[in-house]
Amino acid sequence: MHKFINLYKNNQHIVNQVISGLIHPYDDRLICLNESNIIRKKEINPNKVVLMSGGGSGHEPAHIGYIGENMLDCAVMGDIYQPPSSDEVYRAIIDTYNGQGTLLIIKNFDADLKSFIEAENRAKDQGYIVDHVVVKDDCSVEQNSFQQRERGVAGTIFVHKILGAAANQQFSLEELVHLGDQVIRNLKTLGVAFAPGDAIGSVNQQYSLEDDEMYFGIGIHGEPGYRKERMQTSERIAIELSNKLFQQFTNEPQLSFAVMVNGLGSLSMIELAIFLDNVVEYLDIEEKPIRFTTLGNFMTSYNTNGLSLTFLNLVDDEWFHFLRSDTDAFAWPNK
Amino acid sequence: MHKFINLYKNNQHIVNQVISGLIHPYDDRLICLNESNIIRKKEINPNKVVLMSGGGSGHEPAHIGYIGENMLDCAVMGDIYQPPSSDEVYRAIIDTYNGQGTLLIIKNFDADLKSFIEAENRAKDQGYIVDHVVVKDDCSVEQNSFQQRERGVAGTIFVHKILGAAANQQFSLEELVHLGDQVIRNLKTLGVAFAPGDAIGSVNQQYSLEDDEMYFGIGIHGEPGYRKERMQTSERIAIELSNKLFQQFTNEPQLSFAVMVNGLGSLSMIELAIFLDNVVEYLDIEEKPIRFTTLGNFMTSYNTNGLSLTFLNLVDDEWFHFLRSDTDAFAWPNK
Repeated sequence: MHKFINLYKNNQHIVNQVISGLIHPYDDRLICLNESNIIRKKEINPNKVVLMSGGGSGHEPAHIGYIGENMLDCAVMGDIYQPPSSDEVYRAIIDTYNGQGTLLIIKNFDADLKSFIEAENRAKDQGYIVDHVVVKDDCSVEQNSFQQRERGVAGTIFVHKILGAAANQQFSLEELVHLGDQVIRNLKTLGVAFAPGDAIGSVNQQYSLEDDEMYFGIGIHGEPGYRKERMQTSERIAIELSNKLFQQFTNEPQLSFAVMVNGLGSLSMIELAIFLDNVVEYLDIEEKPIRFTTLGNFMTSYNTNGLSLTFLNLVDDEWFHFLRSDTDAFAWPNK
Repeated sequence: MHKFINLYKNNQHIVNQVISGLIHPYDDRLICLNESNIIRKKEINPNKVVLMSGGGSGHEPAHIGYIGENMLDCAVMGDIYQPPSSDEVYRAIIDTYNGQGTLLIIKNFDADLKSFIEAENRAKDQGYIVDHVVVKDDCSVEQNSFQQRERGVAGTIFVHKILGAAANQQFSLEELVHLGDQVIRNLKTLGVAFAPGDAIGSVNQQYSLEDDEMYFGIGIHGEPGYRKERMQTSERIAIELSNKLFQQFTNEPQLSFAVMVNGLGSLSMIELAIFLDNVVEYLDIEEKPIRFTTLGNFMTSYNTNGLSLTFLNLVDDEWFHFLRSDTDAFAWPNK
């Protein structure tokens, strides 16, 4: 399928326009720093730890859509599916610094870690107080080794929300890192694609599917999954993904779950809603209490036709209240 | 492309699950009445006119996503692309009645008008105070007669927001009808598709497109448009749609515009953002002041790959403030 984006070949040109269009509706409170892909609140609250995330473009509304009260202060975006340079991240740290410390929320990909940690170390050498957490919610496995990939995917948005609300409640940088690590240990995601996304700019997706196939465990950059199967009903897919996720929590006391159904780009809200309904029904049958649900396109992979399911094991009641706290971040649904 | 929804053949079964999944995250404040497709606020404010809309399913998040403070009180949904029966609308009017009067916001389609007005008349015969406005923002034309279709499409969401906020400010039913008519006179939308949606349940789309074709003036139920063209850049499409919309306002003083870029289902946020950026740039060049912009999937046509552009001529400054007022309706982006 041809989309008008394919008429552009320059990835940076795409990213510039995307940022400009995304923040236009919110230009009273969001700005993009000159000659950069750094988007931040106009006003940085001087009395709390600064929260920053980012990564490659192509996952919109992530992460720009999560800048707001009780969420992020800043997002540093890279080229399509490429993290920002460490120079950009460093500039963002300096530009938003308020003396309370800065927390970087990094998705677990080698290239992302390299950029963000390099920038963190450079800033620390200059006397800035900076720390980070690494989100690794993806339970997909390598097709050959069955080793878990532990990539950072849609669950990252729950981390933004919980840590964002905690920062607003005066958690220190150290406390936020501790909370973040606890949340991340209890955060699991698995994705499935029904059709790969199109090429975007000069970036191609890395797999193809027959019309009636689906692919479990795909990544958010067009990476292939671990198993292709014939298309199933939403109900069967809900059971399959839920069971795979349950297996991740066997060592933890399972209190209640926060559930996110995340569209990967081109799946309609009808499918996302049916799928959430099926997940809720299955968890009811399995007597797993659900405390919080949300559905939407939170972390996309351009226009991939697929979805991911995230379970967060709410081992602390406070996490639920952090998830429920108000925000003006435009991509977090009104509660 | 196969989607899991195609494995269901019973449209009503689809609709039940969609409603259930859509409202689950908000079940503290939204309910679906027993054995119905009527979704309403749990608590109806007794001190303002009740606002109600609805229509066929298949346009999610419309209209359920617009129930909330400063927007709708109730949405009555029908089968896929079919309006609710007049019995359902009547039941919704009675169920939510608070003695302040009820306003129906109807999209201009014969079948919708029939259901809603029949219900209104029946309720009025029983002594209920009910009135309506009819949204007809679509500027698409019949391919043969060039007569304007005047269907109610994405602009309807601006009507929900402006009238919803006005109702909250104690506008009477009569004042709301007057305001609604003024807004609707200044509200114009035009859509374009790059690929038709898939069949949904037992409903098929009514046109097909080559890979590199696009279709101006398509409807939100898979109706064909008025002109097919080779695929253009986003910039060219932005200029084409903007110019067509400008022509609609020649008899009105053009003060400033509210702009909505609406995704029809499967277009990525990247395309929507680039398109909004191009529209903003073109309106700047044309020296048309923009006061408000928004982008998202507001009124979809299942998974149609396309978008619509809506201009509202803000002839009254108050409309802007109504658009900006807070809401907890989940599909209206946080401001």
